[in-house]
Amino acid sequence: MRGYGMIEVNKPGWIEKEVPAIGPLDALLRPIAVAPCSSDTHAMHGGSGPKENLILGHEAIGEVVEVGELVTRFKPGDRVVVPCNTPDWEVPNLQRRDSNNAHDLGPMKSFKFLGSKDGIFAEFFHVNNADANLVMLPEDVPIEDALMTVDMMSTGFYGAELANIQFGDSIVVFGIGPVGLMAIAGAALRGAGRIIGIGTRPNCAELAREYGATDIVSYKEGDVVEQILALGGQVDACIIAGGTTQSITQALSLTKPGGTVSTINFYDVSESVSFPAYLWGLGMSDVSLKCGFCPGGAYRIERLLNVIRAGRVHPGKMLNYSFEGFDKIEDAFKVMDEKPRDLIKPIVHITW
Amino acid sequence: MRGYGMIEVNKPGWIEKEVPAIGPLDALLRPIAVAPCSSDTHAMHGGSGPKENLILGHEAIGEVVEVGELVTRFKPGDRVVVPCNTPDWEVPNLQRRDSNNAHDLGPMKSFKFLGSKDGIFAEFFHVNNADANLVMLPEDVPIEDALMTVDMMSTGFYGAELANIQFGDSIVVFGIGPVGLMAIAGAALRGAGRIIGIGTRPNCAELAREYGATDIVSYKEGDVVEQILALGGQVDACIIAGGTTQSITQALSLTKPGGTVSTINFYDVSESVSFPAYLWGLGMSDVSLKCGFCPGGAYRIERLLNVIRAGRVHPGKMLNYSFEGFDKIEDAFKVMDEKPRDLIKPIVHITW
Amino acid sequence: MRGYGMIEVNKPGWIEKEVPAIGPLDALLRPIAVAPCSSDTHAMHGGSGPKENLILGHEAIGEVVEVGELVTRFKPGDRVVVPCNTPDWEVPNLQRRDSNNAHDLGPMKSFKFLGSKDGIFAEFFHVNNADANLVMLPEDVPIEDALMTVDMMSTGFYGAELANIQFGDSIVVFGIGPVGLMAIAGAALRGAGRIIGIGTRPNCAELAREYGATDIVSYKEGDVVEQILALGGQVDACIIAGGTTQSITQALSLTKPGGTVSTINFYDVSESVSFPAYLWGLGMSDVSLKCGFCPGGAYRIERLLNVIRAGRVHPGKMLNYSFEGFDKIEDAFKVMDEKPRDLIKPIVHITW
Amino acid sequence: MRGYGMIEVNKPGWIEKEVPAIGPLDALLRPIAVAPCSSDTHAMHGGSGPKENLILGHEAIGEVVEVGELVTRFKPGDRVVVPCNTPDWEVPNLQRRDSNNAHDLGPMKSFKFLGSKDGIFAEFFHVNNADANLVMLPEDVPIEDALMTVDMMSTGFYGAELANIQFGDSIVVFGIGPVGLMAIAGAALRGAGRIIGIGTRPNCAELAREYGATDIVSYKEGDVVEQILALGGQVDACIIAGGTTQSITQALSLTKPGGTVSTINFYDVSESVSFPAYLWGLGMSDVSLKCGFCPGGAYRIERLLNVIRAGRVHPGKMLNYSFEGFDKIEDAFKVMDEKPRDLIKPIVHITW
Repeated sequence: MRGYGMIEVNKPGWIEKEVPAIGPLDALLRPIAVAPCSSDTHAMHGGSGPKENLILGHEAIGEVVEVGELVTRFKPGDRVVVPCNTPDWEVPNLQRRDSNNAHDLGPMKSFKFLGSKDGIFAEFFHVNNADANLVMLPEDVPIEDALMTVDMMSTGFYGAELANIQFGDSIVVFGIGPVGLMAIAGAALRGAGRIIGIGTRPNCAELAREYGATDIVSYKEGDVVEQILALGGQVDACIIAGGTTQSITQALSLTKPGGTVSTINFYDVSESVSFPAYLWGLGMSDVSLKCGFCPGGAYRIERLLNVIRAGRVHPGKMLNYSFEGFDKIEDAFKVMDEKPRDLIKPIVHITW
Repeated sequence: MRGYGMIEVNKPGWIEKEVPAIGPLDALLRPIAVAPCSSDTHAMHGGSGPKENLILGHEAIGEVVEVGELVTRFKPGDRVVVPCNTPDWEVPNLQRRDSNNAHDLGPMKSFKFLGSKDGIFAEFFHVNNADANLVMLPEDVPIEDALMTVDMMSTGFYGAELANIQFGDSIVVFGIGPVGLMAIAGAALRGAGRIIGIGTRPNCAELAREYGATDIVSYKEGDVVEQILALGGQVDACIIAGGTTQSITQALSLTKPGGTVSTINFYDVSESVSFPAYLWGLGMSDVSLKCGFCPGGAYRIERLLNVIRAGRVHPGKMLNYSFEGFDKIEDAFKVMDEKPRDLIKPIVHITW
Repeated sequence: MRGYGMIEVNKPGWIEKEVPAIGPLDALLRPIAVAPCSSDTHAMHGGSGPKENLILGHEAIGEVVEVGELVTRFKPGDRVVVPCNTPDWEVPNLQRRDSNNAHDLGPMKSFKFLGSKDGIFAEFFHVNNADANLVMLPEDVPIEDALMTVDMMSTGFYGAELANIQFGDSIVVFGIGPVGLMAIAGAALRGAGRIIGIGTRPNCAELAREYGATDIVSYKEGDVVEQILALGGQVDACIIAGGTTQSITQALSLTKPGGTVSTINFYDVSESVSFPAYLWGLGMSDVSLKCGFCPGGAYRIERLLNVIRAGRVHPGKMLNYSFEGFDKIEDAFKVMDEKPRDLIKPIVHITW
Repeated sequence: MRGYGMIEVNKPGWIEKEVPAIGPLDALLRPIAVAPCSSDTHAMHGGSGPKENLILGHEAIGEVVEVGELVTRFKPGDRVVVPCNTPDWEVPNLQRRDSNNAHDLGPMKSFKFLGSKDGIFAEFFHVNNADANLVMLPEDVPIEDALMTVDMMSTGFYGAELANIQFGDSIVVFGIGPVGLMAIAGAALRGAGRIIGIGTRPNCAELAREYGATDIVSYKEGDVVEQILALGGQVDACIIAGGTTQSITQALSLTKPGGTVSTINFYDVSESVSFPAYLWGLGMSDVSLKCGFCPGGAYRIERLLNVIRAGRVHPGKMLNYSFEGFDKIEDAFKVMDEKPRDLIKPIVHITW
């Protein structure tokens, strides 16, 4: 079969591979809608270390082709939503808390597509623990909205969850790309008051306001910390959905004692988190720093689909570049890599 | 001074009293906008026991007339929002948890207006711990919206908070009067998916949908439990904002294992809570029953005003009967007592 | 193979059955230590409805005889701790919250031994999702202590968890049988202050004090509510580990506004929960009623074993009736059914 | 009146001042037992900036000399426990959450003794909001135990609370001075399993074990991170109760994905928090970093006294240097400054 990914670092291209074999709990799928993500292009450029001959992609709606003997909830022909994070639910540590990080194993061990196997930019792809990870695509949810639940909405909303938002809290969201936009929507849907987005792209700013931002602040108009403090002083929580670890330092300057800085951003292996102790009240500010990886599994996706079905958010609006056909994955990937100024997020529809 | 209330049980009327004296932490206010509440009329009919010569009313926007020597945040002439629940913040038990029930003292001991002193349907009224309880009326919040924060929105939103709503949860709200409408708005602003309101009044049903309900079910069209189960099975949480203790039994029938039944309704002293053990999984269902009284204090009101200022909800829309002048408190009270079919909530604007 | 259970209601006895077949995720075990539980005898008497030809028992330490092809953490010969509650971890609803109640399925659907298949009083027994449910018996934990984790300690500690205990809270525990004793130990290990146990058996009372109770109150010495109020007034939380639904009413009389009543007791299908509304502050007391079923899975058991290994509790002390040999399951079962006054909990050691 | 403190930086000594005036909510006290704290000596050396003519000390049991007109719970002659953190409870932001940091005001604004007024090493000292901050000294609690609640036990236990300990969690505590010892006791009383203390002083190590530590690791025997990983791998949470910000980096190396690093240490204004992003899973580890300042107010102290009265911990055992008489404050202060190898914590008993 054919797939698109990285032949080696900085060399994207088409790759020929065997169709994946499935075990008793697994399913084999064909993609019917996919979206490239900046972590795919980041990996291609070597951001997660040297890799070769790897099919990329982890955001997909798929059609079931084959299921293992223990799979009871799905059958060939079913159209399903595929979370980007697909835990192995037989691991006991997943029974703890809300985190999907199986914590003896190390972070992101459930993120199999980009971490330990080929991704979904392929004629066929493999899903582990299908019953526990896949969700039937509801007939009343547009495929674009459903596709956005698998990573962008799940991650952005997780940023809002980590921020422990209470009614009327004031929030700053660093970054108004797709994850930041979803963090804004998530904060609004937890009942935040003022939501200040930091970003510059005009169409993102417009969509940010539609998703619930009350103010947009741009790096281009001066120091963002000063601009935000001038708006109304420190805030209850910051959500970091873009940028470097420097954003954490800025966020600490912006957060009231007792508040939270939540980061859902992926940092480069070369970066350090570093801030003066006085920004943390010399250890006495009661400000929590939380970070987290997109929760996985079917239940999470079902819940996000419920939010969409109730008409409370339309994440599919972010998909402003659209392609048709499996071969166009290459174009969509390049668009994501080059990030034209009006790009928010691309989608590729695939018919077989 | 003159005030409106209950001369004795079932005998409402105007009462003459001394202007209240204030202590060092207190403030004396004049009302500039007030709203009668069904708990006022309920008290007048003897629902909270025999009372006489009592000025009623606990929902007010006021103007500060005088402040005690220790009050630093307010001065005469300030226009302020007055929470219906005004705790005495020097009581240590209030330092525990989120509850405003000072728990050695018994429930609702912070609800002073209807509980232990004259209310706000008066030419002047008394507020304890003014710095910790009053909030300056923001210039950018309509007085109708602000007035609704002091009880209806605070109580309704508390129902949503008690229900422990997570993104995409399905919710049933019993009752679509003002508190139920605010519970619906609160549930939507915690990110619920499906929200089913139970009620019959057409204008309430319309407003319920505007505040976020996805479905309205009416007692007039059959058994509500059956209707709701037919819509999509059991739900994650129920919020009871009206009716009798019988609603609790219905709610248990409707709530999934692991879910929550939250009640913010005031029950009559003659009622009992009673349900068969099998509706609670014989004690094994992990369903929590929670009840609660409207949180008090300035911080709560500030937060609710933040939600309004961000444009996320407009509770003033519920005020569909409007009166002008202090003397019209009597008419507003009678409307609340008689509840014409199109009434949602009355307001009286007062100029001095 | 041979097993002990109920031939029909009120007729316990030995039963001949086929050795259970196992699937790819399952394991087949032999019991090496078992304990009868009052829910076994309760079932035998028809308490959970008409059943026949059913092997009973759900508290076991076992030896692995055979594993399915997907089981990776265990092999024949391993000695393992078997939780009484063994969820099917491929069900998405288990991904929600801390509850092990897969909530679309109804309460206790994970309690398979007594609910949907033969129990562990057998020459061989079946365990589903072995990797996710079984735990290797640690060499440094006595088998008696380990056996008590699978239900008594897990359930009792869950009662303490549901009670949301904060440092210094005062707690009442209804019942000082094995579950109540573990609720006392659990409350002490959450940092409670005063812990009042309600019960009469002298050896249980002695052990209750050893596990952390500061006071013991007996029904024989007068009204327990009055006795407890006389000790120091209302308490922060009650844990109900025995008795009828009447205990819930008593608990509400004893619990401060803002507190919690937690019940881990199994009620009879003929019972009702019923209490006057004023005991719940007419719906305004902020008192939560929570109930729950013993959490399942391997992670839970590992954690409880950690508490034992740190020397913080010795639940095996409750096993004060000891039997040797598979055939003695019958005697142990009868002891549990007859409950001699000095019985706390029986154990049967089995050698093959 | 006379008090002991800092005449200027690095110059401790006796200071003459006016007896403090009290307002309507305040109380004037005489100390009857005091303990110097390392933050007193740290301040004397200029650690919190240039200060002069300041009476130090913030850990005291006192006798009430005079109360303001609004104080109702105390009268002259009462013996009371004085929290080191005495919030002004009329500030609305204190109504939020569990944090005692009034968050618009900046961190530690409730820490008045060392922050904004003279301390308790004086013939008389001032307590604001006496009703909400003071607690009657119980007759059944030794004065040494009670004295340790006001800072050491409250701070150490808060470290355990921030660490979100669940039954059986494995914990590392950095530092086995008085705060670290209380963090160990607090972790044990939240039901932790393994508790590893890091420290070297033999009598502290012995007391650490008595308070619940299962293992002690010393810097003197090699790299502490390596030693701890060798004991049993990463842990669920770390509590930092001593050392520099370097401990945070070590703690991140030791904490499992999904776990917590909690710090209750006061860092120097010259320090920075700095760690490589990969120790935080590149932002994907779900590890929370929390810091916090000792909670204040009467309720907190009452709860800690309840823990002591139940016999669950004896913090007074840490007081292994004892002095008699007001003038001996100077000797006790010097001992704290010089920290002889066998010192855990000094106390001065004072009779008037």
